[in-house]
Amino acid sequence: MTRFALTLEFDGTPFFGLQRQKNEPSVQGAVEAALFAILGEKVTLHSAGRTDSGVHALAMRSHVDIAKDITPFRLMEALNAVLRPDPIAVIDCEIKPGDWHSRFSSIGRSYQYRIRNRRAPLTVDINRAWHVRPDLDHQAMHRAAQTLVGHHDFTTFRSAHCQSESAIKTLDRLDVRREDDWVIIDTAARSFLHHQVRSMVGCLALVGMGRWTESQIGQALAAADRHELGLNAPPQGLYFVAAKYPEDNNINQERNS
Amino acid sequence: MTRFALTLEFDGTPFFGLQRQKNEPSVQGAVEAALFAILGEKVTLHSAGRTDSGVHALAMRSHVDIAKDITPFRLMEALNAVLRPDPIAVIDCEIKPGDWHSRFSSIGRSYQYRIRNRRAPLTVDINRAWHVRPDLDHQAMHRAAQTLVGHHDFTTFRSAHCQSESAIKTLDRLDVRREDDWVIIDTAARSFLHHQVRSMVGCLALVGMGRWTESQIGQALAAADRHELGLNAPPQGLYFVAAKYPEDNNINQERNS
Repeated sequence: MTRFALTLEFDGTPFFGLQRQKNEPSVQGAVEAALFAILGEKVTLHSAGRTDSGVHALAMRSHVDIAKDITPFRLMEALNAVLRPDPIAVIDCEIKPGDWHSRFSSIGRSYQYRIRNRRAPLTVDINRAWHVRPDLDHQAMHRAAQTLVGHHDFTTFRSAHCQSESAIKTLDRLDVRREDDWVIIDTAARSFLHHQVRSMVGCLALVGMGRWTESQIGQALAAADRHELGLNAPPQGLYFVAAKYPEDNNINQERNS
Repeated sequence: MTRFALTLEFDGTPFFGLQRQKNEPSVQGAVEAALFAILGEKVTLHSAGRTDSGVHALAMRSHVDIAKDITPFRLMEALNAVLRPDPIAVIDCEIKPGDWHSRFSSIGRSYQYRIRNRRAPLTVDINRAWHVRPDLDHQAMHRAAQTLVGHHDFTTFRSAHCQSESAIKTLDRLDVRREDDWVIIDTAARSFLHHQVRSMVGCLALVGMGRWTESQIGQALAAADRHELGLNAPPQGLYFVAAKYPEDNNINQERNS
């Protein structure tokens, strides 16, 4: 068996999330079906994150174990051909040691959340951003966001369906910036709870609209109570951007030396 | 009658172009039908540019003459409500003097062409960019592009259906740059011929792939013969970005003074 790491880009719109579903289309289901069509092997796709229905990925890191002899390049080309017309692309493929795991070896995840902040409806960005009509004060959002950075109990910002053992996580980064009528939120952590990014963004948007004070973010966090959540931002603005692995640092160190 | 200037953003994918068609959906047809539904008036939408099927607009400038008493804000809101679910949004609306014309008063147009330059298929950018697999040398493209800047006979880069009286135009700007795996082309002129941007981009892509030398762009231009056209780039990468009017300069001058 050879372990292949796959980097996936996908449009989450037509899928009921990344994880395999019994009767609904999923990214995992589509990739596993394509692999079966190519190789005749029933394989399981593992991934660094579990994105929800409608959430996109620019570079999801995944892996599969394959018995058949095939090069990474040929595997990637065959997958991209067979996956059509599903909006999933394999943008990188490489062989990894058998103890490398896309989920368990990952030491960091980053997401981007994209808000289009204007009155007019969306056209070219439908299903690619959250449309927020009231003017957002992105500077207030950024200040409030810093309350969430650090080691906290994120129970307030966690889905009722979250399967994580602990709600205590360390948030490394939560930056809010404006680019014309876009408000862009970049966040990074070792790992996130289910719905954590969307829950944090939803509450920050309330701050941006002036419906919450900046200090209410800290109060909601301190309450450690899901009922204190103000708003869960919709999935279509969320992008899984990258997963980090220990060897990424080694590569950088080698490059820098 | 009051003249209303409308700034339109649209996704060109579902339309057979901006101009009204007898039996096919068009941006003009959709906006005129919405205006009739709102006002009970048959009005004609005039626009700064005539984009083809599949071409997008970030800020098309248009105008209509309306008899009924209505404020620009209410007109914009009503249009945005009635236009749903068509991917057309009115992002600005204002009253203009009766001699202001979205097309004839315009003294400049600018377009952006977006190429995604990678091997893997597109997902989140389907219908939003031209997918070019071979590596493009964007610096060679930019150098070759400068041959086209200036006052020339652009017959080679003109559609057989072009209705312009003369093929002699002045191209003010044609810049090619790379952002990661995107190659972005920005161009501006007082006016463009039909298919001119797509034809210039298609030939520059041939230079970028190494299939044309840089000097072949100048040779194709000098030939002034449509048969010398190498490639017409597809519509889905093209965005109408802005139209310029004499009063825009006045505003800038006032702001700067």
